[in-house]
Amino acid sequence: MPVITIQMGKMTVDKKKEFVEKITAAASEITQIPSASFVVFVDEYDYESIGVGGQTLAEKRAGK
Amino acid sequence: MPVITIQMGKMTVDKKKEFVEKITAAASEITQIPSASFVVFVDEYDYESIGVGGQTLAEKRAGK
Amino acid sequence: MPVITIQMGKMTVDKKKEFVEKITAAASEITQIPSASFVVFVDEYDYESIGVGGQTLAEKRAGK
Amino acid sequence: MPVITIQMGKMTVDKKKEFVEKITAAASEITQIPSASFVVFVDEYDYESIGVGGQTLAEKRAGK
Amino acid sequence: MPVITIQMGKMTVDKKKEFVEKITAAASEITQIPSASFVVFVDEYDYESIGVGGQTLAEKRAGK
Amino acid sequence: MPVITIQMGKMTVDKKKEFVEKITAAASEITQIPSASFVVFVDEYDYESIGVGGQTLAEKRAGK
Repeated sequence: MPVITIQMGKMTVDKKKEFVEKITAAASEITQIPSASFVVFVDEYDYESIGVGGQTLAEKRAGK
Repeated sequence: MPVITIQMGKMTVDKKKEFVEKITAAASEITQIPSASFVVFVDEYDYESIGVGGQTLAEKRAGK
Repeated sequence: MPVITIQMGKMTVDKKKEFVEKITAAASEITQIPSASFVVFVDEYDYESIGVGGQTLAEKRAGK
Repeated sequence: MPVITIQMGKMTVDKKKEFVEKITAAASEITQIPSASFVVFVDEYDYESIGVGGQTLAEKRAGK
Repeated sequence: MPVITIQMGKMTVDKKKEFVEKITAAASEITQIPSASFVVFVDEYDYESIGVGGQTLAEKRAGK
Repeated sequence: MPVITIQMGKMTVDKKKEFVEKITAAASEITQIPSASFVVFVDEYDYESIGVGGQTLAEKRAGK
């Protein structure tokens, strides 16, 4: 039943598998809730849709 | 003003229409808040971005 | 696995039960996903923490 | 550390830059938290995935 | 219809009013969507429920 | 900059510390993004505000 959502940039398919597997295992161990009950969403954004410190990541990466 | 967000896999356009219509009607009836005030977001994820029980839905569907 | 979150004002315990029951039933019927897979969160806010049209609901209710 | 997420329709790249810049500046000034600590996500939905008053924006725009 | 949610620590009632008013005005001007359509949620967390860099803000403030 | 939000029941202060520490470490290792950039929110709900399979957790625990 616990739901974990990560908001970040793009991840490869393999990284998503690893994220789902390891974060579920760690969260299950900490909370003592069976891993079968966990739902994880990988909520990806492109660099133009993430802002840090008032600039988009796209701007930061372009060296502005 | 109430905001309902559903996180799930892909839905067809017709299913989204039906979801918005029926969920708004049901929620309006329960809360006694006019349906005009409700906002609904259908937040779709591909099967590689949803994890259940430590595996992505893509892995589960591939029979792993 | 679908996760439905509603952000709104306070609801009574009975209204929450009714919301969880009826919204899950409606969403399950529309999506053809078994109701057992649905998770619902009722995310309540007080009127000072919800803004509509640039005013908090607390201000609106105070007749400002 | 404050995280601001906006859920809405599509925005152009320039509008996203402006949104990130101006909303971070305004929120930093109000909260007195340095703008460097703010993270902003622009969470875009197409008109078929947003419902208002029981209809999708796609339906509303089609004049139904 | 755009929905803005800020996740952060506690804010005073006056700061919430100011946040709702100014963020709605800025977002309306940028997007050219009428301010009446905006919904804002101030989603407050105590310092034990926010982590930055692997530590809760409560730990950081205790000088650990 | 990645933001991880967990929605679940109540957690003790010690469990929250452990959650923030270990989930940040695991996510940082998987994504190769420095742990200093991660923000984590523990979004707690009481059992009357979480529904699973059409019933609130409060109802399930009462043995209904």
